[in-house]
Amino acid sequence: MVTAKAWALKKHFEGLPKTNDFELKTIELPKLKDGELLLQSVFLSVDPYMRPYSRRDMKEGDIMIGTQVARVVESKNPAFTVGAFVLADRGWRTHFISDGKGLYFLPSPWPESLPRSLALGTVGMPGLTAYFGLLEVCKVKPGETVLVTAAAGAVGSVVGQIAKIAGCKVVGCAGSDAKVAYLKKIGFDEAFNYKTVASLDEALRKASPDGYDCFFDNVGGEFSSIAVNHMKKYGRIAVCGAISQYNTTVLQKGPYIQPPMIFKELRMEGFIVSRWNDRREEGLKALMKWIMEGKVKYHEQVTEGFANMPAAFIGMLQGENLGKAVVKV
Amino acid sequence: MVTAKAWALKKHFEGLPKTNDFELKTIELPKLKDGELLLQSVFLSVDPYMRPYSRRDMKEGDIMIGTQVARVVESKNPAFTVGAFVLADRGWRTHFISDGKGLYFLPSPWPESLPRSLALGTVGMPGLTAYFGLLEVCKVKPGETVLVTAAAGAVGSVVGQIAKIAGCKVVGCAGSDAKVAYLKKIGFDEAFNYKTVASLDEALRKASPDGYDCFFDNVGGEFSSIAVNHMKKYGRIAVCGAISQYNTTVLQKGPYIQPPMIFKELRMEGFIVSRWNDRREEGLKALMKWIMEGKVKYHEQVTEGFANMPAAFIGMLQGENLGKAVVKV
Repeated sequence: MVTAKAWALKKHFEGLPKTNDFELKTIELPKLKDGELLLQSVFLSVDPYMRPYSRRDMKEGDIMIGTQVARVVESKNPAFTVGAFVLADRGWRTHFISDGKGLYFLPSPWPESLPRSLALGTVGMPGLTAYFGLLEVCKVKPGETVLVTAAAGAVGSVVGQIAKIAGCKVVGCAGSDAKVAYLKKIGFDEAFNYKTVASLDEALRKASPDGYDCFFDNVGGEFSSIAVNHMKKYGRIAVCGAISQYNTTVLQKGPYIQPPMIFKELRMEGFIVSRWNDRREEGLKALMKWIMEGKVKYHEQVTEGFANMPAAFIGMLQGENLGKAVVKV
Repeated sequence: MVTAKAWALKKHFEGLPKTNDFELKTIELPKLKDGELLLQSVFLSVDPYMRPYSRRDMKEGDIMIGTQVARVVESKNPAFTVGAFVLADRGWRTHFISDGKGLYFLPSPWPESLPRSLALGTVGMPGLTAYFGLLEVCKVKPGETVLVTAAAGAVGSVVGQIAKIAGCKVVGCAGSDAKVAYLKKIGFDEAFNYKTVASLDEALRKASPDGYDCFFDNVGGEFSSIAVNHMKKYGRIAVCGAISQYNTTVLQKGPYIQPPMIFKELRMEGFIVSRWNDRREEGLKALMKWIMEGKVKYHEQVTEGFANMPAAFIGMLQGENLGKAVVKV
């Protein structure tokens, strides 16, 4: 008999989540039936989307949702051997039972030199989000200028590097000088700290006086409204996230964007990466190849211990992470 | 020697334009040189776009821009015979000289039963705007539900009727009960007066409880922010105009729209009809065919007299027109 630990939403978040909005539960797992397997989470992901999801789709008491890299510890399913690593969407749990459905094997063979946690980051959902958002929503072309917000985050850092591979000039915006230094290190042409510049308008103009062809928006809010005015004619805006709005308690407002949308003929499109589930393999293969070639670099913010999941989540929402935030169980 | 009259922008508009923001000028036209022709405006167009254009691209003293149906009254250009009707973009003038460049002949033969002013409306720029915006930006499909604002205007009324031809359910929103009655008369499935409904949110829900696949937005502002929340997954928003914002003196604000854009994966695109200049003939041919078949009905608000151009323009900006507002010289 295995006892799993799991984090539940104790109380709907108001503003920034607090550690006592979560409750640690213990769940006694039954014996495996034929076709089932027992898995142990090795790495768990904390991602921005969990915050708006909790409000829209969860009730108090539900286990927090999310993805993990898990190892098979016992199996009555011939498709899964003990010791195998898979990707699962089973939320904030140390252990869980599966019938095998909805599990993905990690890209195989997994390179020795890489941590398996990358399957939650650059070679996982955030990497795919960058890949399809930039190539399919922005449809970047060589020679174009791309603006990325939350550029040092799990998605943004990959967006910028793929844009460089695609032959673009890349401007990144992040919330600390250390992040800005990191962006320059991984190849961003320009980067600035939105918290310390005197004027966002001026910073955007200085970084690209001719404006931007593409804007990969992870942040929303005031920055996005300003950025719209810096787009070139026929510019494309991929709306990937709106982290600036996830913890607000009062509905935030900004200038209506229709006038610049019209006279610059801009296209703005919101997207969720699952739209390209049928092209998952293509994306993962490209990302893994670029990492092995050194064209895409990665950084992870690893928090140790399942007990610290709420803290890792809250820290990530405040932008404390550089690159992908993961929890090592 | 011909003396033309022309309306100039005397003073940049603040808020709603006032008649004394305009100045009537007289311009002595020189004798024609070889290759030139003298034209007389027969119908002049007043359109919403002139308001933001004046602020962005005009200086005080400039002649107001715009399109006219004009008749050739004298010609030293073999391509244009006296009596021919053309479409020109020469602004608010009674007469003007042209070298023939930039003039379009009206669709020929022009049907006896139709006023030539339609070349400024349903069989002109506003009709083409509806045609390409709905078919190329919204990309409507049979069975979809389409929302149109300023639905009784020059563009909106054509959008709704083309959407019906395309096999869609159409919901229109307008600013008077007479307009709402007109919309129902020309085939809109649902229509409501945004000025008198208790709640826009409720009116939108009632008109289409399942939401909207496409939203052809002529208005912008608060209505648009509410409508975004009524879009279906993968909905498309064609941003054609933002007339609610053209006469504001203080920058208006509304809720940031990124969160619903993301979780519904919406696409929003601003456009200007000149993007499809190379497909002009196709669009005009389709519109003319539908009019002759009775599938697209039209209504014009004709103001008599060149002296009344400013009043016609101001009235149109306030939504006093049903259908296309034109001035008969």
